Amino acid sequence: MNFKETYDIYLKTVEEWLETNIPLGMPDRIIPPATQNAQEKIDDAMKYSLMSGGKRIRPVLSLAVCDALNGNKDIVLPFACAIELIHTYSLIHDDLPCMDNDDYRRGKPTSHKVFGEAIAVLAGDGLLNMAFEIMLEEIERCDRDNNSRVKAARMISHAAGTGGMIGGQVQDIESEQRLITYEELVFLHQKKTGALFSASVLAPALLLDADENIIAALDTYAKNIGLAFQIKDDILDLEGDSVVVGKTTGSDAINNKVTYVSLFGLKRAKELLNERIQEALYSIKTIPGNRFLGELAIFIADRNK
Amino acid sequence: MNFKETYDIYLKTVEEWLETNIPLGMPDRIIPPATQNAQEKIDDAMKYSLMSGGKRIRPVLSLAVCDALNGNKDIVLPFACAIELIHTYSLIHDDLPCMDNDDYRRGKPTSHKVFGEAIAVLAGDGLLNMAFEIMLEEIERCDRDNNSRVKAARMISHAAGTGGMIGGQVQDIESEQRLITYEELVFLHQKKTGALFSASVLAPALLLDADENIIAALDTYAKNIGLAFQIKDDILDLEGDSVVVGKTTGSDAINNKVTYVSLFGLKRAKELLNERIQEALYSIKTIPGNRFLGELAIFIADRNK
Repeated sequence: MNFKETYDIYLKTVEEWLETNIPLGMPDRIIPPATQNAQEKIDDAMKYSLMSGGKRIRPVLSLAVCDALNGNKDIVLPFACAIELIHTYSLIHDDLPCMDNDDYRRGKPTSHKVFGEAIAVLAGDGLLNMAFEIMLEEIERCDRDNNSRVKAARMISHAAGTGGMIGGQVQDIESEQRLITYEELVFLHQKKTGALFSASVLAPALLLDADENIIAALDTYAKNIGLAFQIKDDILDLEGDSVVVGKTTGSDAINNKVTYVSLFGLKRAKELLNERIQEALYSIKTIPGNRFLGELAIFIADRNK
Repeated sequence: MNFKETYDIYLKTVEEWLETNIPLGMPDRIIPPATQNAQEKIDDAMKYSLMSGGKRIRPVLSLAVCDALNGNKDIVLPFACAIELIHTYSLIHDDLPCMDNDDYRRGKPTSHKVFGEAIAVLAGDGLLNMAFEIMLEEIERCDRDNNSRVKAARMISHAAGTGGMIGGQVQDIESEQRLITYEELVFLHQKKTGALFSASVLAPALLLDADENIIAALDTYAKNIGLAFQIKDDILDLEGDSVVVGKTTGSDAINNKVTYVSLFGLKRAKELLNERIQEALYSIKTIPGNRFLGELAIFIADRNK
């Protein structure tokens, strides 16, 4: 199977898990008609963003690591999808008028454009909360044999929090309209994008009780593809086609945002991207089933959206 | 000890736990100065709302139930305080311009007034996430002896989610400017305020492996004081002193909001409040150490803020 075929199988596995397991359907008891509409509205808003045809890179990463370690996907899927919920909530909140004020995401109007700001805030809250509901249900279901699942959930909670993704988002806001250094830019992205990328790669390793040297290798891999992903985002904002990318391009320059491109120019940014990919490929050399992970790193650099 | 003395001891226990255990201080590694400022900013915003001198009714309830069941407070405190973090995040998001657009909370400017809307959204996100970080750390720390803690955390996650508190908030928004029925109003409050009240009462019962009949009694108690709390809120909005209450009063009438007072008038609302308190007192008759819980129910009805 080639890269695209394997990616599509992972993607389909994720989509099916989400459709089957995310309780965004009928409420669990008889409620007054008006409140039923409200329940439907928040469910619809959460579904709208969650099932909007994203690349699902994070859960695909988790499934790829699971396969590389010859693991059982049923163990990994709830945690991989919980990370996708966390990622989706972060996009909804990032797009809000008080944040990036984006009208389009993945080629569709953003949540607050469709449902209004209040529901968009709550849909984000709901997805973050649901991510933890999913993980805790899974931990409870496994009763006393839940040790590695607890470790994975706790690691994910740190990655998503103010020491990770949220902290990175704050730094992003605080860095606007100000010349930040390369060091600051790297640190920002390691948190904003990198933390959840790393969680996606490390969660299956923890869930499958991988050896420490495997975990260390995957950690280096994740850090490098996380940064590569961000450098590529910066490049796409300059030279991407907004129709293909699915969101407004050129906004970094308009907002005077410091990016890899603004700091180093397009040519050097592409070199930096390539360096990260090479590092990522090198780091997983010792992992036997590494083929797809390597191809995924290259895909991140080559994507056009 | 009288009611106030006991309440103050519980309050102090909660404040001390939060101050000691919530990682809102120095970041855990050396970071660039500019990013350090960002970390401080989100920490400050979270602290501002979390340590703003609220009544802490929810964690106080948890400690009171813990005492009534002769339990160990060290087991209950992390979960009680996690609920307080969830409550605090919900207030920050509720106060946002796109939601209730409130300028004051607990007598102080609301989060978005002090830190701006973007940081207020993220501070709320950060507190919700941190609540789960705290619970998962506690579950991990207890290793294989974590069964009752997992149950409590999962129950709290449901209470906070779209099937609970967030769902109630959505219904509240959807009910604005519309005449809702009594049935709808009760259902709304059972979710918006009641779910987290119930979680505060039931979490210690689960953590301490209480009997089913005790859990059922506490469940009825929690449902009744939760509704009583909301009825009292409606009454305070009409006849409370905004300086004492610590937020703008009279806003329900201005916003044409359906409340217990608008539906039944002040006199009948007070009767309904009293009925709920009587039900609450009756429900815990069989629990030996119930004195403070009974006094707390009466305090909820009698409070002036």
